[in-house]
Amino acid sequence: MTTYPPAPLYPGNDAGPSGDGLLRVAPIGPLFLETGGELPDVQLAFETWGELDRDASNAVLVQHALTGSSHVARGASEEEGWWDSLVGPGRTVDTDRFFVVSINMVGGCYGSTGPASLAPDGAPWGSRFPFVTIRDSVRAEALLADLLGIERWHSVLGGSMGGARALEWALMYPDRVERCAVIACTAASSAEQIAFAQAQLQAIRLDPAYRGGDYYDGPLPEAGLGLARRIAHITYRSERELEARFGRAEQDAEQPFGAVLPSHRGRYQVESYLDHQAEKLVDRFDANSYVILTEALMSHDAARDRGSLDDALGAATSEFFIAAVDTDRLYFPVQSRRLAEGLPGNVPLHLITSPVGHDAFLTQIHQLDDQLRTAFFSS
Amino acid sequence: MTTYPPAPLYPGNDAGPSGDGLLRVAPIGPLFLETGGELPDVQLAFETWGELDRDASNAVLVQHALTGSSHVARGASEEEGWWDSLVGPGRTVDTDRFFVVSINMVGGCYGSTGPASLAPDGAPWGSRFPFVTIRDSVRAEALLADLLGIERWHSVLGGSMGGARALEWALMYPDRVERCAVIACTAASSAEQIAFAQAQLQAIRLDPAYRGGDYYDGPLPEAGLGLARRIAHITYRSERELEARFGRAEQDAEQPFGAVLPSHRGRYQVESYLDHQAEKLVDRFDANSYVILTEALMSHDAARDRGSLDDALGAATSEFFIAAVDTDRLYFPVQSRRLAEGLPGNVPLHLITSPVGHDAFLTQIHQLDDQLRTAFFSS
Repeated sequence: MTTYPPAPLYPGNDAGPSGDGLLRVAPIGPLFLETGGELPDVQLAFETWGELDRDASNAVLVQHALTGSSHVARGASEEEGWWDSLVGPGRTVDTDRFFVVSINMVGGCYGSTGPASLAPDGAPWGSRFPFVTIRDSVRAEALLADLLGIERWHSVLGGSMGGARALEWALMYPDRVERCAVIACTAASSAEQIAFAQAQLQAIRLDPAYRGGDYYDGPLPEAGLGLARRIAHITYRSERELEARFGRAEQDAEQPFGAVLPSHRGRYQVESYLDHQAEKLVDRFDANSYVILTEALMSHDAARDRGSLDDALGAATSEFFIAAVDTDRLYFPVQSRRLAEGLPGNVPLHLITSPVGHDAFLTQIHQLDDQLRTAFFSS
Repeated sequence: MTTYPPAPLYPGNDAGPSGDGLLRVAPIGPLFLETGGELPDVQLAFETWGELDRDASNAVLVQHALTGSSHVARGASEEEGWWDSLVGPGRTVDTDRFFVVSINMVGGCYGSTGPASLAPDGAPWGSRFPFVTIRDSVRAEALLADLLGIERWHSVLGGSMGGARALEWALMYPDRVERCAVIACTAASSAEQIAFAQAQLQAIRLDPAYRGGDYYDGPLPEAGLGLARRIAHITYRSERELEARFGRAEQDAEQPFGAVLPSHRGRYQVESYLDHQAEKLVDRFDANSYVILTEALMSHDAARDRGSLDDALGAATSEFFIAAVDTDRLYFPVQSRRLAEGLPGNVPLHLITSPVGHDAFLTQIHQLDDQLRTAFFSS
């Protein structure tokens, strides 16, 4: 084991403790993948907050969701983090006490090796980027943990797709995960999650600019990625919330009944809202990464090659914290309950209460502060 | 008023009573549309079953859903009807007693004037086909009712988008609708229904073969229409049903983990199922009609230009039958309840019980047999 920080491993990248929340990159070598692919030289982008203690017992891994990044919290960076309310000095995951790590997934587009990275032949991987499963990602993360000198995580936390990686950490490396929090995620991607994911993949592949994934020398498949996001975003919110916020209201001066041709009519507010969500994602995310990570999410299945689901979950040895959003209609609370029931001991299901649906795992995470503190982070 | 059948109006088309369930076509002249468009020579395709009685008091109008046709029931045709269990000799809507009419919507592709029809210049309407609202469709249907000698319907019934037209019949022509059944449909398309519809429209418009709607001289936009159908079909079923039927099962010998590249992997059963649903629709439906009718469905709003929703519904004078599917997550029962509560008198909400979701309005319609018979069709 090396000690932190292992400066020679990522020269020029050692931002040190003052570099809280700044992106660094580490090479982890080749990665051999579950379905037969190989990535020869993988680098993982990551951020840290706080300091690793002498016996490396205070390390917390926080896992991002499908289009998330390693930027969980502010730190030395001005940029807002996606779980700022949970992670920081004095927060539930207190960076004055804990050494927090977050890692961009393999296949992503926030610094880790992904489809836009250059393959050994000097051209972007594009369509040649291999199938990466949740477990492949976790195996890569374990290599980075080795480099960081973290033999055993105090805790691994994740929401949505980050929850899938947190769970796989606990099942693949039970000795390395003392505590595991799976929030708004379940033991396996369901038939419906696969169905909505397929539609999103098809939307991207339908865009003529996608060109099978080899588009980096031309226009980007923005329309396809935007449509994928629209479909996904509807499932991240609740019917009730969309109705309360938008109903049938018109977008400003636009008139949904203002044109002879439907293609020329004005938009409803909810259409404008989804257009905006699409534009925001297209500006910050790579379509190939969206495909690779969506495929990874479809692959999520704690039971694969481990017998029954109860066999798989029953073998876990970490302490678990399972939570769901009461109005989530993508990751249903009943599925989170099934996960909790399959784990050893009496694992309760914690509920975030919100009209918003799935996205409340981001916006309403503070509702779990007390419960998480009691379960994992009391001193 | 003319008497039925008004032979000169559709020469060669008079199949007579023996022509039960055979497609006929009637010209209804020009149609001036709600958002300013005009269709100069509209024809409506329709089917009938049974005979109109002497005082034209036994006419029942049955309205089809988004991709449905006028073929409600078998009759002289061998082809299965979409509400065979409800409509026929001895059925709840007894064609030995009632004269049943079903009409293909304006903009459709089952015989009525639609985007694939020829415009006055001899070329298909294509991208030039105007915006048609639910109310426009109903106005066209009223012209056909005139031709058929039907001053007042014994009842108007519809499910899903057919329910929207049934409701508008009752609100636009209260004196012409004695009874109105709205099944698995609501008073107005909701924000979420608009959102899912927008995604479907974008899927079609994204297909390069769509060419803005002017594709009739080339390959058809099958991928786009297929994707639209996949999105829609997920919303027509329930999460519970998809999980119970498919779970994470692999499609036959296909292996979802069997390839290095995600684009080459085998499918999950639920993907194959949706592929099949897409293929079936693409074989029978025109993409432009899908766009025009989806836009019409988005326009559905009983309150438009009628004050509040309660003003609009409170003015109704028909007898109503409102029903929903308990697991419907596209047309929620609570929305149907709102519709029932807005109508004059104490209108109960009838429930179809099924794990299937929205589509149960087709497959489980027999559950309403007794209730519909008692309410509308007792002798």
